Amino acid sequence: MSNIPLSPQRLWDSLMDMAKIGATPAGGNSRQALTGADAEGRRLFMEWGRALGLTPIIDQAGSIGLLRPGRDPSRKPVAVGSHLDTVPTGGRFDGVYGVLAGLEILRALHEAGAETEAPILVINWTNEEGARFYPPMGASEVSMGLRPLPDLLATQERAGPETFADALAATGFAGEANPAIFRDIAAYFETHIEQGPILEREGAEVGIVSHALGVMTFAVTVEGRDGHVGSPMEGRADALVAAAALVLAAERIALAHAGLGSVNRLALFPDTRGTIPSRVNLGASLRGQTQEGLDAMLAEFRAEADLVALSRGVTITITQDWGYPMVPFDPVLKGRLEVAADRRGIVRRTLATPIGHDAIHVGRVLPAAMLFIPCHGGLSHNEAESITPRWAEAGLMVLADAVLETAGLVRAP
Amino acid sequence: MSNIPLSPQRLWDSLMDMAKIGATPAGGNSRQALTGADAEGRRLFMEWGRALGLTPIIDQAGSIGLLRPGRDPSRKPVAVGSHLDTVPTGGRFDGVYGVLAGLEILRALHEAGAETEAPILVINWTNEEGARFYPPMGASEVSMGLRPLPDLLATQERAGPETFADALAATGFAGEANPAIFRDIAAYFETHIEQGPILEREGAEVGIVSHALGVMTFAVTVEGRDGHVGSPMEGRADALVAAAALVLAAERIALAHAGLGSVNRLALFPDTRGTIPSRVNLGASLRGQTQEGLDAMLAEFRAEADLVALSRGVTITITQDWGYPMVPFDPVLKGRLEVAADRRGIVRRTLATPIGHDAIHVGRVLPAAMLFIPCHGGLSHNEAESITPRWAEAGLMVLADAVLETAGLVRAP
Repeated sequence: MSNIPLSPQRLWDSLMDMAKIGATPAGGNSRQALTGADAEGRRLFMEWGRALGLTPIIDQAGSIGLLRPGRDPSRKPVAVGSHLDTVPTGGRFDGVYGVLAGLEILRALHEAGAETEAPILVINWTNEEGARFYPPMGASEVSMGLRPLPDLLATQERAGPETFADALAATGFAGEANPAIFRDIAAYFETHIEQGPILEREGAEVGIVSHALGVMTFAVTVEGRDGHVGSPMEGRADALVAAAALVLAAERIALAHAGLGSVNRLALFPDTRGTIPSRVNLGASLRGQTQEGLDAMLAEFRAEADLVALSRGVTITITQDWGYPMVPFDPVLKGRLEVAADRRGIVRRTLATPIGHDAIHVGRVLPAAMLFIPCHGGLSHNEAESITPRWAEAGLMVLADAVLETAGLVRAP
Repeated sequence: MSNIPLSPQRLWDSLMDMAKIGATPAGGNSRQALTGADAEGRRLFMEWGRALGLTPIIDQAGSIGLLRPGRDPSRKPVAVGSHLDTVPTGGRFDGVYGVLAGLEILRALHEAGAETEAPILVINWTNEEGARFYPPMGASEVSMGLRPLPDLLATQERAGPETFADALAATGFAGEANPAIFRDIAAYFETHIEQGPILEREGAEVGIVSHALGVMTFAVTVEGRDGHVGSPMEGRADALVAAAALVLAAERIALAHAGLGSVNRLALFPDTRGTIPSRVNLGASLRGQTQEGLDAMLAEFRAEADLVALSRGVTITITQDWGYPMVPFDPVLKGRLEVAADRRGIVRRTLATPIGHDAIHVGRVLPAAMLFIPCHGGLSHNEAESITPRWAEAGLMVLADAVLETAGLVRAP
């Protein structure tokens, strides 16, 4: 256990200060990526860093790093990261907690005048949510070399004229650092609210994330043939009936593989009373516990679609439009989180993350680990999202211990 | 067989003349009820009537009758009717053929100077299609005393500010006759294109309609619970999965009862990538060969909905919003159509109508019969809708024989 003067109260106060920016009437937050509110939150974060004598590093994707040097110049930083941006009607903790827990480690080290062998780097990744610029998690993807920077910069706003590059310029966050700077690290930790009900339900104070489920999202088009609703059943090519079979197939396949699957978007044409639907567009996603499982799920979904197409006389097109592979987190880093929890008597359990986080892109390339804290009712992406101060403290303590063990805490001289 | 000088060519020419009104570039017609184009079509029809010395009767629902007196003042008219209005991108024959076939009978009688015992009445019903003012077939429903006139007059345009009453006034078709005038008839015949593939496929020239399938249309609301797409499968209340089960149930139930069933409208909320759908609104219809069958189908659909609601943790509400019962056509009138076809060597077959027609409302109250002629590929409500002159002739001959036998043709003095 590290005995630097971590202050759960200071962390909580900073969470509440950050929550004043983009506060919504219903008690949540709206700080979509690279809007005025997000920029204000970023400036506050940088100000907090400067108060510790740290000069923020801003990369070309707008991600911000606070780097606290270590004693050993040969060692790469140990990074802690998450995101300050929110969905349009988001909560006060999703993302923010992970960034500010990292900041609290820097503050405690600063207050103690303590040194670490390796530098410690706290990162705020740009646009984790993807609410304004789809897809999500693009900045960490670019930093890890998994996506070209120009591709990210050209991303068009969903509901507006700006590109990602425009928004960076408008908010003053078009930094100069090469995004690869945040790949030049030894290890990465991210702590986050669970966004699910498991920890609270089982009375665990923290969750060690074993792995991220692999995700595949895809667009499905079913082309049938319209006709009068009074036409004979036998000659029909009803696109909606075929689509309904696919909706149920996604669920059935997910259950068979202990994965997740659902159809979340659907539009049919012509969508009139008297006419058999001729076309249906679906947006679907599958999540698998293992990469093999996910591949098998997609293969089964494609096979089911072929069968439906054949038996229904429709044409079905499946186009993958986003996703990432199953990512196991680093066993050594996970072990350090487990040991830290056990030493402090903090109740932990292990669970997987079915939801995207920047740690997943990092974990595809580098040793990474994730730590969850509970959230009430599993509620997130919701203004009513909430946690207890005790959960916030438990996550901070476990995170700090693992980070400092990885970085090598040196007693202050 | 009547030997009045029926002219299939004159009927065809009149069809082509009517098709010039509201002609669409793709070769179809757009004469939605009580629009300027429909009014122009109505005026042409009345002009054709006046040329035969007949004064059009216009009722308070805008329906137009051409009444040719009979010799026996004690007898009620034998009516022939259909509609001149079309869907927005309709064809040249749907409805129009039935009105103008009736007109051709009047013309032939006029030309021959022939008399009938009973009067003959040719009716153009207002707004059969229901494209502009929903629901369809409202004027015949009112004439038959099955719906209050004020209810029809208050109907709001689907995509505009006018009521049915406004549109009647604007086009000059707010007549003075009580709509019940068209109920004061002895028998009713309607001839129409099939709007299905059966007659053409089987080489029949006319179809005697045995009965109209009972129809029920309803709105279904499925209320589930939203959640992140990464949430566990077991706790979900996915409204779209429940809705998909209902889409398939409608089809399964229809097939089991040799009826028809489908879901034609669907909207889901919130319809975003990352969220399990919390609510789905469906528009569905069921059609049964018998009234008992239709009732059983709806009962099975409701039972299925209860089961889905229970097993999926969702709430399902079913609200019937339109429909009419199964209507058998009059055996005597059907027999006259059959005899007429057989005497002329016209190939006939018997079939049911799954699609709404004014004859159905009439048949709920009075002796009525329907005669179909084929249409190419079963295509209707489509600008490419087409028939052959031979089919038009076959229908005219069979219709005229049955109408004149019912009315009692008297040789010209």
